[in-house]
Amino acid sequence: MRQALAAARRGWGDTHPNPLVGAVIVEEGAVVAEGFHAKAGEPHAEIKALRALGRKPRAGATLYVTLEPCCTHGRTPPCTDAIVDAGISRVVVGATDPNPAHAGKGFELLRAGGVEVVEGVLAADCTDLNLIFNHWITTGRSLLAAKSGVTLDGKVATRTGDSKWITGEAARANGHLWRRYFPAIAVGAGTVRADNPRLTARVDGVEWCPWRFVFDGLLRTVTDKSMPGVYTDEFRDRTIVVTTPHGGLGYVRKLNAMGVKAWVLNSTTPKVNFEDFRARCAQEGITGVFFEGGAQLLSELLQSRELDYLFTYHAPVLFADDKGKAILRGLRTETLAQAIRLQQVRHEVHGDDTLMRGFVKYPDRMFVDEATFNRKDYGA
Amino acid sequence: MRQALAAARRGWGDTHPNPLVGAVIVEEGAVVAEGFHAKAGEPHAEIKALRALGRKPRAGATLYVTLEPCCTHGRTPPCTDAIVDAGISRVVVGATDPNPAHAGKGFELLRAGGVEVVEGVLAADCTDLNLIFNHWITTGRSLLAAKSGVTLDGKVATRTGDSKWITGEAARANGHLWRRYFPAIAVGAGTVRADNPRLTARVDGVEWCPWRFVFDGLLRTVTDKSMPGVYTDEFRDRTIVVTTPHGGLGYVRKLNAMGVKAWVLNSTTPKVNFEDFRARCAQEGITGVFFEGGAQLLSELLQSRELDYLFTYHAPVLFADDKGKAILRGLRTETLAQAIRLQQVRHEVHGDDTLMRGFVKYPDRMFVDEATFNRKDYGA
Repeated sequence: MRQALAAARRGWGDTHPNPLVGAVIVEEGAVVAEGFHAKAGEPHAEIKALRALGRKPRAGATLYVTLEPCCTHGRTPPCTDAIVDAGISRVVVGATDPNPAHAGKGFELLRAGGVEVVEGVLAADCTDLNLIFNHWITTGRSLLAAKSGVTLDGKVATRTGDSKWITGEAARANGHLWRRYFPAIAVGAGTVRADNPRLTARVDGVEWCPWRFVFDGLLRTVTDKSMPGVYTDEFRDRTIVVTTPHGGLGYVRKLNAMGVKAWVLNSTTPKVNFEDFRARCAQEGITGVFFEGGAQLLSELLQSRELDYLFTYHAPVLFADDKGKAILRGLRTETLAQAIRLQQVRHEVHGDDTLMRGFVKYPDRMFVDEATFNRKDYGA
Repeated sequence: MRQALAAARRGWGDTHPNPLVGAVIVEEGAVVAEGFHAKAGEPHAEIKALRALGRKPRAGATLYVTLEPCCTHGRTPPCTDAIVDAGISRVVVGATDPNPAHAGKGFELLRAGGVEVVEGVLAADCTDLNLIFNHWITTGRSLLAAKSGVTLDGKVATRTGDSKWITGEAARANGHLWRRYFPAIAVGAGTVRADNPRLTARVDGVEWCPWRFVFDGLLRTVTDKSMPGVYTDEFRDRTIVVTTPHGGLGYVRKLNAMGVKAWVLNSTTPKVNFEDFRARCAQEGITGVFFEGGAQLLSELLQSRELDYLFTYHAPVLFADDKGKAILRGLRTETLAQAIRLQQVRHEVHGDDTLMRGFVKYPDRMFVDEATFNRKDYGA
């Protein structure tokens, strides 16, 4: 199954809206073929493995697959049929199909076809492989995730704004791997103006550009002087400015003329409504968005209860300074029952830093502390 | 070597001021004997292993030992002689003797005696086993360490003081393991008054009591009404109140009459001077102190640059509240160069929580922010 997981990861970031899936065929204790799902519309992992084998599996062959084989006609015929027809004796599965309408049906069909089925092997790892797909298929909503690199006391920058770099190289490289996983990245106008970031994923020397969202309700990033790189570089057709009618139509036309897209979402304030943003993402088939900052944007996302998932890199660095800039802020949390918690928590070590990540579980009620939420020194 | 490490840990917390050491003897690929150092004055691990074998090792026998064998007459004769005399062919060693006066001499003597020596196997793990001993032997100072359980945004309590429990059971159980490791534990007067803690190590159902320091410059914990448990329970002769002349001699006498010790350390203010405290610990042979809070005491320790080592448990909990109580505070950290860093960092996962620990490396200059350092809402 570990080899099937490794195979699945070869489709990393390329399969949306489909899941990552890997499969290996084992005959008499030896792996004889493997396959992975590479792209929506292309064959599923099981079929790829069967084709890679190039012949009928021997009697007693076992198929290991990270996700329950599909049992319905989608863009491809059901894998359960193909597995039964191929004469596979035994199927070992990682994760159950997260779609409640299908979960377990693949197992039933395989068993009805005379195939022995073993479920739930490395299930947590196999499920974790598809954070975005699982969320999408069960809720119909895009996964809004945030990433932050913080000190061990939870700060993203010193009181003067120094933040480069809190985390080490290994953690930053891992952050790029997650950029590569998500179909889109998002930052606030303040981050674009302060850092002029490229917002591409650099993994193993290869640069890849996700959809790049710039949240800018007032179009403060569009000026007559120098434009930020994300509006002018070779990937500018991958940039989408998310704004409000308060941003000004003239600026939107200017962006469009440069080849940059803009989503103008209705709002009575200059702040983008995250619910509308999420709905628009779903319409456009963008199943996951990776928010990288700044602290203001992430705190607004949290306050609106629209943040689904959090990636926190902790570095062994300590400011011991209440005026340092917090990863997330603006709430009035008086009791532990009012705290936000992460679920399905995963931990990884990257160099001297750790990654803690999980789904955000909100308390029943959250109280905003306007005074700290609007602290001027945070910028935007 | 892993088995030698496990053997060494059987002396966990019992060997001060000596190190934890484990040894195993291997003949023809099989472990035939093991030993560990149990207590100062008792035989070293190598000797224990040779005795456990109960006969002469066979030709070609290998001794695995977590720490370089001693080469000097202390309370026991040098282990290097015993190893050579026993006819051991090969010695595989984890950590080099941290004492610069001895480091490598054990290897030389063994080699001179015709023994093959392999150095540095699992050296980092073997060195980490003896945080306190290594610090003591190289600096002559007691190791002052602090432990804290915090949210992922670095808070030890909500703005109203709710803190039970931020970390989960597994992390708290691991905290007790470290209490068992250190010869002494320390807390501030505020913690004693607020929580009335027992300050014992509960490991595997066994309760053990370290030296228990209560930092109380004004003896606010000594009252005419109910006394805290650490002054009255069955371990009260293990409690030492650390105070100043401002605490009042009458209260000191009262404590002594109850069977509780008091160290009255000179100070022009009601705060205990940590340097003097550390010197007194050294005099009394207390080689390590585990500070468990509260936030005020730990921040004073940090500000005085006397904190040597930090244990931080991070829970997947988020307050997102600037007014939550920080793990450490009171500094004005403007640039990353002014940040405090941990070195020789180790990471562990305990349930949903992580432990990040390491030696504290201070910047050349630290700046205190009196306003936040003296925030009234922190208590003491």
